Amino acid sequence: MATKVSPLAPAAFPALPVIDGVRFAAAAAGVKYSGRTDVMLALCQPGTAIAGTFTRSATRSAPVLDCQSKLGGPTDEGAAILVNSGNSNAFTGRNGLASVAAIVEATAQATGTPPSRIFTASTGVIGEPLPHDRITAKLVELNGALAADAIEGAAQAIMTTDTYAKGSSSICTVNGGQVKIAGIAKGSGMIAPDMATMLVYIFTDAVIDQNHLQEVTTRVCDRTFNCITVDSDTSTSDSLLVAATGASGVDVTGAAEFESALEQVMLDLAHQVVRDGEGATKFVEVEVTGAVDAHSAKVHGLSIANSPLVKTAIAGEDPNWGRVVMAVGKSGAPADRDTLSIWFGDTLVAENGWVAPSYVEADAAEHMKTDHIRIRVDCGMGGGAATVWTCDLTHGYIEINADYRS
Amino acid sequence: MATKVSPLAPAAFPALPVIDGVRFAAAAAGVKYSGRTDVMLALCQPGTAIAGTFTRSATRSAPVLDCQSKLGGPTDEGAAILVNSGNSNAFTGRNGLASVAAIVEATAQATGTPPSRIFTASTGVIGEPLPHDRITAKLVELNGALAADAIEGAAQAIMTTDTYAKGSSSICTVNGGQVKIAGIAKGSGMIAPDMATMLVYIFTDAVIDQNHLQEVTTRVCDRTFNCITVDSDTSTSDSLLVAATGASGVDVTGAAEFESALEQVMLDLAHQVVRDGEGATKFVEVEVTGAVDAHSAKVHGLSIANSPLVKTAIAGEDPNWGRVVMAVGKSGAPADRDTLSIWFGDTLVAENGWVAPSYVEADAAEHMKTDHIRIRVDCGMGGGAATVWTCDLTHGYIEINADYRS
Repeated sequence: MATKVSPLAPAAFPALPVIDGVRFAAAAAGVKYSGRTDVMLALCQPGTAIAGTFTRSATRSAPVLDCQSKLGGPTDEGAAILVNSGNSNAFTGRNGLASVAAIVEATAQATGTPPSRIFTASTGVIGEPLPHDRITAKLVELNGALAADAIEGAAQAIMTTDTYAKGSSSICTVNGGQVKIAGIAKGSGMIAPDMATMLVYIFTDAVIDQNHLQEVTTRVCDRTFNCITVDSDTSTSDSLLVAATGASGVDVTGAAEFESALEQVMLDLAHQVVRDGEGATKFVEVEVTGAVDAHSAKVHGLSIANSPLVKTAIAGEDPNWGRVVMAVGKSGAPADRDTLSIWFGDTLVAENGWVAPSYVEADAAEHMKTDHIRIRVDCGMGGGAATVWTCDLTHGYIEINADYRS
Repeated sequence: MATKVSPLAPAAFPALPVIDGVRFAAAAAGVKYSGRTDVMLALCQPGTAIAGTFTRSATRSAPVLDCQSKLGGPTDEGAAILVNSGNSNAFTGRNGLASVAAIVEATAQATGTPPSRIFTASTGVIGEPLPHDRITAKLVELNGALAADAIEGAAQAIMTTDTYAKGSSSICTVNGGQVKIAGIAKGSGMIAPDMATMLVYIFTDAVIDQNHLQEVTTRVCDRTFNCITVDSDTSTSDSLLVAATGASGVDVTGAAEFESALEQVMLDLAHQVVRDGEGATKFVEVEVTGAVDAHSAKVHGLSIANSPLVKTAIAGEDPNWGRVVMAVGKSGAPADRDTLSIWFGDTLVAENGWVAPSYVEADAAEHMKTDHIRIRVDCGMGGGAATVWTCDLTHGYIEINADYRS
C-alpha cells in the first residue's frame, strides 16, 4: 500500500512541552508490523485525574468496554495508558476480554499501578485474536524506558495507516499559574482499512477535580472531534483520554482559560486527523449559521460534510452549490429553501432560494482550487451555528479501500 | 461524459402491455439536450385515480410542491402527467413556481384536462431558470401524437444520466378479472451529476378508490423504492405517481393480488435504478434478520448499504466482514455484538461475536467475484427483518462526480 505522506500534512511533528507527572515509552512488540514500534506506555503519577470519551458504536471493542467501566475511579494511586497498534481486538468475543485482562495484569505488575487505573486500547485489524503475549512480554522493557520527553515516540507507535504522527500542545495561565497541555492522536479517516481507529491521548499538569475534567472533556469533544468526519463511518474502538497529573499545582477547576486551551489542542488534533483522511487532497470547513438551534446547525453541517456528492464535487474543484442545497434538504433538520444563502470562500453563491444576482462562477471556481475549502450556509431562520470539518472524496479513497485486499 | 451502458443493465427494454385508458407521447423540446427527446406527456381518461409519493427533502422543487398539493383531488375529469428532462426547476425561487404554472396551463389548454389534475416533474440541472417556453411550445404536437403503445418513448424522454431506459410490468387476476400494470422509471443513483432525480410513473387499468390507491402506494413504496440507496444522497425532485384508469372494469380495492403485482413492478423498477447506479459494477442485496423490530432491521440494512467502507470493499471483491460489523454498530439501532451472525452469499462468516470456526475466506471471496452480492446479517435479538439494495462504490462514481465539471 502507498505510504506517501498526505499533501495536507503539517511540515513536521511539533515541539511539545514536557508535562510533569507523566512519562512515556514505546517498543516494537511485533503484534503485526515489523521494523517499527507498535506499543506505547504512558505512566501518570499518583493523583492523576482521568477523563474519557469513546465510540458510541453498539459493537465496540473489549478495550473500550473496559476503559468505560473504569472512568470515575479513585485517583490516589496513579494511572497507566497502554496502547498497541496492528490488531484492534474488536469482534474477538470472550478471547478479547481475556486479552485485555492479561495486558492490564502485566502492566500492573510492571508499573505498580492498580488494574482499576490501567486504560488500554488496541487498533488495527479486526476479528483476529490479539497475540497479547507479544505485548505483555515487552512491559518490563517499556517500564524501564519511561522518559518525560518521549511523547513523539508514543505518537509514532500508535499509528496504523496514518501517514504522519500527530501532536499538539497549548499553555495557559490560570490564577497566575502556568498549566501545560500536550496531546497525541492517530486516525486516518474515521476508519482506515481493516477498521483502524481514532485514538487520542492528552496530558496536562493541571490540578482538576476528576468529575469536572470529565465534564470539560465531554463538552470540548463535542465541539472538536465530534465535528469531524472523513467518510461517516464510525470505528468500534475510538477512544479519547485526558490525564491531568496535577504536577503544576495550579487548580483549573472551572477555569475558562483551561477549557479554551484544551479545546485548542483537541481542535488541532482533530484537524490533523482530517488532514490525514484517506485520499484527502482538500481540507474542508463547513460553517452553518442561522439555523433554528445549534443542534440543527450541526446536523446540516454533517449532512453536507458526509455527502458523497458534495465531497466529490470538491475533489473535482467544482463549486456545485446545488449539491449543498440537496444536503441541507435531506438532513432532516428544519430548513427553508427560500431563506437559504450559500458562500464558497468569500463568494456569495446563492440567496433567497436562487442563485445570487452577483454570482460569477469564476470567483467560486478560484476558491475551489485552494486546498482549504470554506463552505458557509446561512439558513436564515434563527441563531443556531456550528462548524464541522471534513476532506474531499477522491480516487485515493477508493484505491486505499477497494483496490487492495486486506 | 462516458455513456457506456451499465454492466448490470437488463438485455433490453421489456415488452410492456398496453394499459387501456392512458396514452403517451414524447417530443424533443431542446430544454438542454439536443438530438434526443426530453419531454413526455401521459394522458389518462376521466375517472383515473392518482396516488403519489415524493422526496422528503426540505428543499424540494416547485413541481414536487405542486404535485403534493394536488393529490386527493376529484377523479371525474381525467389527468395528465408532463415531465421534462435537462433542467430540474429546483432552487429557482418564484420563477420556478411561474414555470410550473405556465406548463400546467399549456397542458390544460392542449389536452382539455383541468389544471388541478395536471402533475408535472422536471429533472436535470439545478438552479438554472427552466426555459419553459420550449416545453409549452411542444404541447399541441405532444397532444396530437398521443398513442397507447408509446410508453417506451416516454421512458426514453425522461432519462438524464441514465445509461438505459427502465420499464416493468405485471398482470394479476382479481375476482376473475384481469388487471394490467406497467411502469417506467428514471434514476442513476439517487442523485446523478447536477442533481438528477428518481422519477417513477406507473399505470394500471384497475378500478380502485383513490384513497385506497394512495395507501397501497405508500405501503409498497416503503418496501421497494425506500429500500434502495446508491450514495445516501436524496434528490430535491424524487417523484412517484401511480395512475389507475379503471378501464379494465375490475375493482381491486383491498385486493392483495393487486398490491402484490404493484410491488413486483415497483421492486423491479427500483432494482433497475440501483443497477444503473453511478459507477456500479455489483448489485448488492443486504438482508437483515433477527432485529428487535422491522424498523431496526431497515436501519441496520441502510447503514450497511450506505457505508463507503462496505461499498468500497465490495468493489474490491473483499469479504471484509469487519466493515459490516462496524456498520451495524454505528447505525443507532439496537445490536448485540455477541449474538451477531454474518453471511456473504451462503458462507457463514461470523457468529457469536467472532469469526465462525467453519469460515474459509476463499469461500466468501468466490462469492465476492459475482456481480450479485448477498450479505445477510442476523442480529439474534428478535423477529425484525428487512431487505435493502444498493451497488458498490467504485472509481466510476468518482469519475462521474468529480472528474467532470458540470
